[in-house]
Amino acid sequence: MCELLGMSANVPTDIRFSFAALARRGGETGPHADGWGISFYEGRGQRSFHEPEPSARSELAKFLRNTAIKSRIVVAHVRKANRGRVSLENTHPFTRELWGRAWTFAHNGQLKGVKRLPLGAFTPVGSTDSEHAFCWMMGRLQARFRGLPAPAVLDRAVAGLCAELHALGVFNMLLTDSRTLYAHCGKRLCYLTRQAPFGTATLIDEDWRVDFAQETTERDVVTVVATQALTRDECWTDLARGDVLSLRDGVIRLIRPGARGAAARVTEVAAC
Amino acid sequence: MCELLGMSANVPTDIRFSFAALARRGGETGPHADGWGISFYEGRGQRSFHEPEPSARSELAKFLRNTAIKSRIVVAHVRKANRGRVSLENTHPFTRELWGRAWTFAHNGQLKGVKRLPLGAFTPVGSTDSEHAFCWMMGRLQARFRGLPAPAVLDRAVAGLCAELHALGVFNMLLTDSRTLYAHCGKRLCYLTRQAPFGTATLIDEDWRVDFAQETTERDVVTVVATQALTRDECWTDLARGDVLSLRDGVIRLIRPGARGAAARVTEVAAC
Repeated sequence: MCELLGMSANVPTDIRFSFAALARRGGETGPHADGWGISFYEGRGQRSFHEPEPSARSELAKFLRNTAIKSRIVVAHVRKANRGRVSLENTHPFTRELWGRAWTFAHNGQLKGVKRLPLGAFTPVGSTDSEHAFCWMMGRLQARFRGLPAPAVLDRAVAGLCAELHALGVFNMLLTDSRTLYAHCGKRLCYLTRQAPFGTATLIDEDWRVDFAQETTERDVVTVVATQALTRDECWTDLARGDVLSLRDGVIRLIRPGARGAAARVTEVAAC
Repeated sequence: MCELLGMSANVPTDIRFSFAALARRGGETGPHADGWGISFYEGRGQRSFHEPEPSARSELAKFLRNTAIKSRIVVAHVRKANRGRVSLENTHPFTRELWGRAWTFAHNGQLKGVKRLPLGAFTPVGSTDSEHAFCWMMGRLQARFRGLPAPAVLDRAVAGLCAELHALGVFNMLLTDSRTLYAHCGKRLCYLTRQAPFGTATLIDEDWRVDFAQETTERDVVTVVATQALTRDECWTDLARGDVLSLRDGVIRLIRPGARGAAARVTEVAAC
């Protein structure tokens, strides 16, 4: 298994506090020592950092802990390999361009028979089930739409693809088109939104406490999604299996699959 | 204009010596202060580092100077913007996946009317002429071949596309499919091959001297391509306008366009 970390915010936001916890789980407070990666968006621009080594002992991860990269969308992953050898090409997140947007994907879980799903024009570079699932999703979106659809339309399409993959096994996933961050809960995923009035938070994995009131303005809205809670004194909400979050500017829409045949239900979620 | 740096080697090789010179030209010994990027291949895996800021003053570039990332193919670029604002999405090198390979591209020069060239399924994320040219090349390759062609076939196809872009202006370019590194000389590009017996070299841009005999084995072959010579005591060979180098495992094939209508001439080049 692996662990995921995603962030969606309405202002460029420094992820270092949350990333510090995730990075320690890559071989220190967690067993995910087979590689790590993090992707940052600045508008439509995207850059990623990858290493097929434990993040807890990585000089590059340490560098990123000490460097403020402010971003409105972040996708990060620490890997415990099950399918696909430990190598750079198998290190999440994966990125593809479609319709002039950089799309980024990270996954934890196992998907039985996913490699039998037929691909379109997107092909895995590595050998993981995860990259195959991503390429399948991208191919399906490319086949269905002629260009980037309206956000609400894409929300439903992504939720539909997630439901198909969910049926194959465990599909905890983060995906973004540089505009919306999607999170699908296959088995385990939780989230929280930080907004005014801001409080303090302390990491579970190390002794780091932040007073967000000192770091933010009243208008900031920041939602963080993670496999497991990263802080011990905030209110994290668990997602149910099959739930999809669509996050734009930190604002949450919860897409909960309906009963068989029924339409999915979309709910605007207030912070707890 | 911008400056390019490429490397092809038959063993994973540390590029730091050459990158140090290029990075200083990004705002210190050269005026290319509008961003920089470097892409490393480890087998089929690829990772890039990008910043829309001067490399000469970059903490990330400094980190890379102090960290040995060994790679058989490297593409690097420092940018002086002429078309497209200074932003992350306009920072070279650019990457796309085709046929399960990560392709990476960097360019210096200007191409008149390039944005009128029709695109296939690859679309620019940013607004540079360069990324448009890259997407056009990728679309043309995708339309022409059903999968990754044999290296010699791809050599000719890439040389043909380079010739079309060469006709639009200045097209100094590096491109790789993770197997071959291509270099096209539009106006200014030079190269050298380091192999046994190895000597010493001193950077032009700073006082750094390396004795390659200490760093290599007798079998190592490393070819470096750059806009301008990086060292002051080695034999750099200038390419002629229109020349294409195809580099695999450090070995050079020179593709020189024939007279109008004549086939291009391919020459195996020995080091000088």
